[in-house]
Amino acid sequence: MKDSRNIYLTNIPLKEAQNQYIKTVNFNDFYKNTEKIPVYSSLKRVSAKPVFAVKSSPNHNAAAMDGIAVVAEKTYGATEMTSVELKIEEDFTYINTGGQIKEPYNAVIMIEDIIKINDDFVKIHEPAKPWQHIRPIGEDIVAGELIISANHQIRPVDIGALLAGQIRTVEVYPLPKVGIIPTGSEIINVEDELEAGKIIESNTSMFAAMIQEYNGIPKRYPVVKDNFEEVKNSIKQAVKENDVVIINAGSSAGSKDFTVDVLREIGEVIIHGVATKPGKPVILALVDGKPVVGIPGYPVSAYFTIEFFIKPLIAKYNKQMMTKPETVKAVLSRRVVSSLKHEEYVRMKLGKVGEKLIATPLERGAGVTMSLVRADGVLVIPQQLEGYDGGKEVDIQLMKPMEEVTQTIVSIGSHDMVMDLLGNQLHQINSQLFLSSAHVGSLGGIMAMKKQECHIAPIHLMDTNDGEYNKSYVQQYLKGQSMALIKFVGRSQGLMVQRGNPKNIKGIEDLQRKDLQYVNRQRGAGTRILLDYYINNLQIDPSMITGYEREMTTHMAVAASIAGGTADLGMGVYSAAVTMGLDFIPIAWEDYDLLIPQELLKDEKIIGLLEVMRSKEFIEHINSLGGYKIDGIGEIIYI
Amino acid sequence: MKDSRNIYLTNIPLKEAQNQYIKTVNFNDFYKNTEKIPVYSSLKRVSAKPVFAVKSSPNHNAAAMDGIAVVAEKTYGATEMTSVELKIEEDFTYINTGGQIKEPYNAVIMIEDIIKINDDFVKIHEPAKPWQHIRPIGEDIVAGELIISANHQIRPVDIGALLAGQIRTVEVYPLPKVGIIPTGSEIINVEDELEAGKIIESNTSMFAAMIQEYNGIPKRYPVVKDNFEEVKNSIKQAVKENDVVIINAGSSAGSKDFTVDVLREIGEVIIHGVATKPGKPVILALVDGKPVVGIPGYPVSAYFTIEFFIKPLIAKYNKQMMTKPETVKAVLSRRVVSSLKHEEYVRMKLGKVGEKLIATPLERGAGVTMSLVRADGVLVIPQQLEGYDGGKEVDIQLMKPMEEVTQTIVSIGSHDMVMDLLGNQLHQINSQLFLSSAHVGSLGGIMAMKKQECHIAPIHLMDTNDGEYNKSYVQQYLKGQSMALIKFVGRSQGLMVQRGNPKNIKGIEDLQRKDLQYVNRQRGAGTRILLDYYINNLQIDPSMITGYEREMTTHMAVAASIAGGTADLGMGVYSAAVTMGLDFIPIAWEDYDLLIPQELLKDEKIIGLLEVMRSKEFIEHINSLGGYKIDGIGEIIYI
Repeated sequence: MKDSRNIYLTNIPLKEAQNQYIKTVNFNDFYKNTEKIPVYSSLKRVSAKPVFAVKSSPNHNAAAMDGIAVVAEKTYGATEMTSVELKIEEDFTYINTGGQIKEPYNAVIMIEDIIKINDDFVKIHEPAKPWQHIRPIGEDIVAGELIISANHQIRPVDIGALLAGQIRTVEVYPLPKVGIIPTGSEIINVEDELEAGKIIESNTSMFAAMIQEYNGIPKRYPVVKDNFEEVKNSIKQAVKENDVVIINAGSSAGSKDFTVDVLREIGEVIIHGVATKPGKPVILALVDGKPVVGIPGYPVSAYFTIEFFIKPLIAKYNKQMMTKPETVKAVLSRRVVSSLKHEEYVRMKLGKVGEKLIATPLERGAGVTMSLVRADGVLVIPQQLEGYDGGKEVDIQLMKPMEEVTQTIVSIGSHDMVMDLLGNQLHQINSQLFLSSAHVGSLGGIMAMKKQECHIAPIHLMDTNDGEYNKSYVQQYLKGQSMALIKFVGRSQGLMVQRGNPKNIKGIEDLQRKDLQYVNRQRGAGTRILLDYYINNLQIDPSMITGYEREMTTHMAVAASIAGGTADLGMGVYSAAVTMGLDFIPIAWEDYDLLIPQELLKDEKIIGLLEVMRSKEFIEHINSLGGYKIDGIGEIIYI
Repeated sequence: MKDSRNIYLTNIPLKEAQNQYIKTVNFNDFYKNTEKIPVYSSLKRVSAKPVFAVKSSPNHNAAAMDGIAVVAEKTYGATEMTSVELKIEEDFTYINTGGQIKEPYNAVIMIEDIIKINDDFVKIHEPAKPWQHIRPIGEDIVAGELIISANHQIRPVDIGALLAGQIRTVEVYPLPKVGIIPTGSEIINVEDELEAGKIIESNTSMFAAMIQEYNGIPKRYPVVKDNFEEVKNSIKQAVKENDVVIINAGSSAGSKDFTVDVLREIGEVIIHGVATKPGKPVILALVDGKPVVGIPGYPVSAYFTIEFFIKPLIAKYNKQMMTKPETVKAVLSRRVVSSLKHEEYVRMKLGKVGEKLIATPLERGAGVTMSLVRADGVLVIPQQLEGYDGGKEVDIQLMKPMEEVTQTIVSIGSHDMVMDLLGNQLHQINSQLFLSSAHVGSLGGIMAMKKQECHIAPIHLMDTNDGEYNKSYVQQYLKGQSMALIKFVGRSQGLMVQRGNPKNIKGIEDLQRKDLQYVNRQRGAGTRILLDYYINNLQIDPSMITGYEREMTTHMAVAASIAGGTADLGMGVYSAAVTMGLDFIPIAWEDYDLLIPQELLKDEKIIGLLEVMRSKEFIEHINSLGGYKIDGIGEIIYI
């Protein structure tokens, strides 16, 4: 493998990079290829020319009401006292809304204001003014009138107006075509067999969907191996066939990252590296005047880079303004630090607890796609700030509608997969309710409850004095507050070990063995407290346990480490072991309950949650998993 | 024609009608027809089941950085003072981000932190900790983890996460199919010849586009004549083929409005008539448990009725929440009255003038499609209010992004088609700039300027003392303010008469003729002042002019009345006469200029406008129209 690397990237502020880059693009050729399309199918297309009405609407003098058309002058004698009689097809004719007013008629009397004498005669008690209840020609649209200007993105109401003005076709710009080239010798498509060392290509399908939402036409090319010539040929072809080209990945500075060299050879690299996190190693280049963008490989970096650079490009092709994302004010639940090297985009979870909107940062790794899936919004930390303190009010750019945030039960505390299943079941039964879970361990959950940052806190904390769960912790940490526990599940805790237990692990005492790598849970997690209780009983010195300091925040992460071979054993719940195909050595049963303020038990969202917890369907599902006891599920224990 | 009418409609509040109706619909059968589709093409579809990851992501322990994979234990001797040398493929191997960490390696050192000795050896000055810079299996997604819950509308980031978890297909609900039946014997398609008395069908194509935006699948049926059996058969067929059916129009109470009778015969009418304006005569019915909605014929009523009833239905089929429209606070420029009989939806124009956001009501007729095209937002006046006074701060539901409102030059004043052309040219040259024109006549424009409701006011006001235009009016009404006039066009005013001048009209003196119907402009319009000046000179008594009191607010409306035969002559500009195919008897040239506060001449939007006014392209275009003089166009006259 060669060791020719471009380790120097520039660090240009985002706004500057965006402005500098877009100025270099040649958009002119694109705008020349206008096309005429039927108005029927012009939704979201952009007019290349102003459109003037061909015909007026209405195109005749039309009745504005159901009633009779009359000659106004013949009605002048009518008063409350004196009626005037009118003869059908001589003095009047019945007419419906929209009907044409023909000579000699020049007024309409509403159906409510006439008295029918027989099939031939009606009488009226009020005269008609000339042209009353008549929509004159062109009341809505006058022939020759401007209906939409050029550069206008066509909406449903425009389609209505264009048709009413007898416009059949409209001349529009093409939609920008965006070619997307996945690269990487280790990359496979989702349909392929996932062999060891391979990675499923997921970014470019995400890009394609984003581009659709921006109103562009994505075209995904086959995966290209890490080979200079192949990458070059693929880009050249994509540039011919598209208006914008995206290459993913190879934009950074590794030995396989020769995208930038290819682009230097066949075009011009305008910028390589911007001062954002994630998204730094982007390449902004031109080939034949068309934008070619190298997007970093990590999915979160990739997502933001597409937002930063492809979105404004497509808006510009479509002659549309960039609109600012909707933002809300929220209070940070904890400190968020950031470097002075870059502007940082932090995915945030929002929770409406009481009157406060609380914002909590999600995992910040550029590789954690799920942080984007779970995010309610984004906190942008400017480059010149080192972050924000907890309690600070900040602006959050929304990624979900605020209505959804408001309808979300916020859970902070210990992790168990039954929480995910509960959340799913809740939303499945009532699509207007959501449950969001943050995993900070049981004590973390109690602290969040104390700071009023959550509605519920799942906890499993053993009182080492009497072996009872949860209650004494609540009494200690939330003294004097009217709290309750919603009984959830009893669950089996134990040691997860590799399938077939090749290292012949028997119990907690084996943690002292020098040939074993342990993987731990973070401080404050109930599972950690449980482990510490047992090793303390056995008088094992934690510093003697290899891997004691390697901390994971969920059962599944612990299980995954063991399955992946980076650890031999870890403490966790039965369900996690089963899911990851591990063996399980049971140690103890514990109570996994939901802590909640008593007053919230009357909240509609919580009532919905309790209904789901107590439902036969949900209980049966939990029971079928194994490793759980469901006695008393949904019962309330007042503290 | 029969005279059997359903003149009694109910008057149920909107919220109540929506809730009552949606409860009666049977959604269950719809949710049973789930389908499995590739994740690639699942954007905006709604998951019918929770989706759990098949594989972890990454599915191997992977390098998190470009660098070398090492055995951590072999690096422990390295310090700032003492380097450790490592041999390729023995102590280390080069690795790129994402590459698989294979036995025996258990750490990664970043490329920046190694010193290359030669092709076979590198040295390091810092030890590696076990598992540093390694993404463990499942760091992003753990096999078995919930990626998306049921009832989740799939976004681009979900597609990325699903693929990363090796999900190939996803089970989703169908998209709701909406059948749309246009009815009416006078209705034709836009492709057809527009014969006298016919109306081009435009509503149902607008509906189809709206339904697409709501995430439903519209299907437009052929136009059905006003015939009970034909309407019945068409509805029956559409109900078989769709989840929702819309009939337009025939929902009111005219003799041809038998939709309600058809629905009573083949289904159940839940509600007929709601307390909204527009939108009152809606029919909410069920046929075979499916919603069938009769939509009123007037386009504005139709638009709102679709928003009121079809949008929430589709959201419910798609298990999505209804989100509230974005609203802004704005100050009413004038009084808006409303009846206690209904909740009213008034289309509004917004303008950002200085720091104030000004809201001005547009035409309120249910037939004026262009009021929807022009609207920036909607003011909802509750049923229990009789309206709002001018100056009151109100909530406006936005129909356009606020960025567009902010970038709009607000013009209030006299109407001329050159304003539309200027607005179009401005947006064509710079798609980030908009011009909105309200037509209230010249004096109305001056008053709007006085109240700081507009940026510019197009005026053409003759000083009857000296025949000079505009200046003296500005000095009189805006005394002491630093104003300017931007010279626009000289234009030819005259009498518009029917083509070929069949009534042999020669000049103003003919207005006294008893055989002629005049059509006038509104008080305060420059054209009205001009007319009054001439008839005063000729000592003609206005009350002797037939039609003097019939007022239109634009030249085109006057021209349309003459072309439509409801008037014989009216005063207006040459271009309007030409557009409507009328003859023109010139009377006078006048100065049509743009009034503007001097300080706004430095505003970027205005600078953009001036550039366009002075551009060769625009001047040539105006010149080619005839009836305009362009001497001095774009010059500034300080007052």
